[in-house]
Amino acid sequence: MPSNDTIHPIAGIRWSSCAAGIRSGARADLALMELAAGGSAAAVFTRNAFAAAPVQLARQSLLQWQREKTSQPLYCLVNAGNANAGTGQAGLLAAQRSCDSLMTTLRQQEMTAQAGLLPFSTGVIGEPLPVANIEAALPELVAGLDNSADAWRGAAAAIMTTDTVPKLASTRVALSAGEVVISGIAKGAGMIRPDMATMLSYVATDAEIGRDELQALLHAVVERSFNRITVDGDTSTNDACLLAASAASGVAIDGSDDDRARFASALEAVFISLATAIIRDAEGASKFITIEVSGGKSSEECLLAAYAVAESPLVKTAFFASDANWGRILAAVGRAGIEALDIAGVELSLDGYCICRDGARPQDYDEARASAIMAAAEVTVGIKLGRGDCSERVWTSDLSHDYVRINAEYRT
Amino acid sequence: MPSNDTIHPIAGIRWSSCAAGIRSGARADLALMELAAGGSAAAVFTRNAFAAAPVQLARQSLLQWQREKTSQPLYCLVNAGNANAGTGQAGLLAAQRSCDSLMTTLRQQEMTAQAGLLPFSTGVIGEPLPVANIEAALPELVAGLDNSADAWRGAAAAIMTTDTVPKLASTRVALSAGEVVISGIAKGAGMIRPDMATMLSYVATDAEIGRDELQALLHAVVERSFNRITVDGDTSTNDACLLAASAASGVAIDGSDDDRARFASALEAVFISLATAIIRDAEGASKFITIEVSGGKSSEECLLAAYAVAESPLVKTAFFASDANWGRILAAVGRAGIEALDIAGVELSLDGYCICRDGARPQDYDEARASAIMAAAEVTVGIKLGRGDCSERVWTSDLSHDYVRINAEYRT
Repeated sequence: MPSNDTIHPIAGIRWSSCAAGIRSGARADLALMELAAGGSAAAVFTRNAFAAAPVQLARQSLLQWQREKTSQPLYCLVNAGNANAGTGQAGLLAAQRSCDSLMTTLRQQEMTAQAGLLPFSTGVIGEPLPVANIEAALPELVAGLDNSADAWRGAAAAIMTTDTVPKLASTRVALSAGEVVISGIAKGAGMIRPDMATMLSYVATDAEIGRDELQALLHAVVERSFNRITVDGDTSTNDACLLAASAASGVAIDGSDDDRARFASALEAVFISLATAIIRDAEGASKFITIEVSGGKSSEECLLAAYAVAESPLVKTAFFASDANWGRILAAVGRAGIEALDIAGVELSLDGYCICRDGARPQDYDEARASAIMAAAEVTVGIKLGRGDCSERVWTSDLSHDYVRINAEYRT
Repeated sequence: MPSNDTIHPIAGIRWSSCAAGIRSGARADLALMELAAGGSAAAVFTRNAFAAAPVQLARQSLLQWQREKTSQPLYCLVNAGNANAGTGQAGLLAAQRSCDSLMTTLRQQEMTAQAGLLPFSTGVIGEPLPVANIEAALPELVAGLDNSADAWRGAAAAIMTTDTVPKLASTRVALSAGEVVISGIAKGAGMIRPDMATMLSYVATDAEIGRDELQALLHAVVERSFNRITVDGDTSTNDACLLAASAASGVAIDGSDDDRARFASALEAVFISLATAIIRDAEGASKFITIEVSGGKSSEECLLAAYAVAESPLVKTAFFASDANWGRILAAVGRAGIEALDIAGVELSLDGYCICRDGARPQDYDEARASAIMAAAEVTVGIKLGRGDCSERVWTSDLSHDYVRINAEYRT
């Protein structure tokens, strides 16, 4: 299991963070990651048609770096407090200018003559990016690059917006040629229904992994972690997730199938740990809810049911109230759009306790027992569709007064 | 325009209502509608796979009455406080027993020897229907049948659940052969995303309209009224909408195309009046929001955009806060799933004031003006997709503290 307390530094990866005054208040809001020359990197970005300016630029710059520049280091420049989305052509120019200034600073400090530069932004949509603030902070930021665990912690804090806690996960994996380390950070609490990756996560390893292999691994684990969480069904314009491999351990993954499986499993655990940390810190959340759908004819129909339940405002408010109002779960499954669903075959459970069978409550249903389960901080909703062998799992949060308060006050 | 204050009684239609103790408290919770022999009726029901027992029974009984029994009167027995959904086989038996007892009472009071009987229920899902309460109230209910405006008002009040106001609409239409009247009632405030009709609406006219024509009219107007509103995206298990034509005016609709168009237009106005009354009374709503999408390649993609915005918790909380956070509207359109959407062609407006063009705020954007528009109780969001000639309109409400409170407290 990955640890969320101990973060293992990764040889070949350095982080720095500082307060650039992009957010109100004096807290850190700018972070910089460096992947040393000779490493590889892969990323996934939001599928929202209104992808933010930094997303458009980072997608393009990463492709270029992967093709022509892996002998150069790669830098990720991340700001919180401003999404640089819905900013049109001016937003693209602002993101480009941040990267140009970063390159100038890297040269001034004699760090590198050439590099891959990826911009990332998170925060309010539609406001112009304060590039001057970023430029003013760059000398301190670049000078502060550091390989320590504290540097990872600082970065995890600097990229927060409505998050209340920084999100980190780290693990070691023993492979046949030696041990490798995986560490990652993520941010996000609202506008969470990732459709590719979630709004800002950076994971790194000192393993040696080729570009195509890294991209394949990233797609596979994102599909089972960040792409299985939802807070409010609102896919962000800025979602991005980057996986970097520094190769500094000298331990290659490509060797044996066994090593690959072991590494993939550890990587998935780190991703799930970060993704579920976002749900645990979801805006206003008082409950951590796992939706397990099984017995579907396809993954697609399992996901239809899972998301219909996970995003139902009525189900979410019932969870907030610790009310075992299973009728709302049933109504959500019923409207999920599953073709010719036979309701007599559907079974619902809370933490394994059956609350609906043959379209109704079981004869021996005990409301007190169901209520006790609902009162816990973590609840698993089981949905058996009874018509196939496919299954899917999605994580979500409840809908509370605080969710409304946080999102009604966000810009005020 | 239909009136919501004056309700015109319909010759051939009688209503009755009373308190049967199905809901807690002493308020009316049982209503009965009678359509005199010789009329016609059409209905649409929820597409939720977990359609409630009364929905299953009413759908089947109406078909039978339409085929074999129009020489008999038709009765709709409606209770609030219990949905009789998620009740399995026992729920079907309970609904059937209510109808059987109603038939017995009708015979005892020498009203009719044979009739069509349709049960309807609304309220909490998953609790057994208290049939004994209904049976005890039937003699008073049947004896109270009355053709007055007050009887309509009483019925509108009796079918309320979380509604705070009864919903009525009524209008007169001058046709070539004479004047006809249309009157209707509806209920609903939460679990509102009708997919066929909304949770309980009864509309009647004294016009003479054949069964197939009536069904066609109903489908057409429902598609532009109840099927265009959403509070929380949660399609109810009990949605039903019935349109009855008593023929008592002796004015037939089938005559001229002009008469048909005039009647259809008046009918649509009554349906839109009832549907929007549900949005105005939506659970916790402080705003009435119209989403107008134009310039789409198809109705389908216009509806994708409209519902993505209308059901976005982030857009809804921004409306609650009167915050012109147009970035959230843009993000919702961007994730709506419209194929190859060119964001440069999308334009957003609030009450006609442009807030986004070419993927960004207009140069002369005035935040104070946008905020003033958002502060009003009614706001129209305009979304021009800029890629075709199709348009669609959807009505919705905001997401407030009261929505969470009402739905967290619903069963407690």
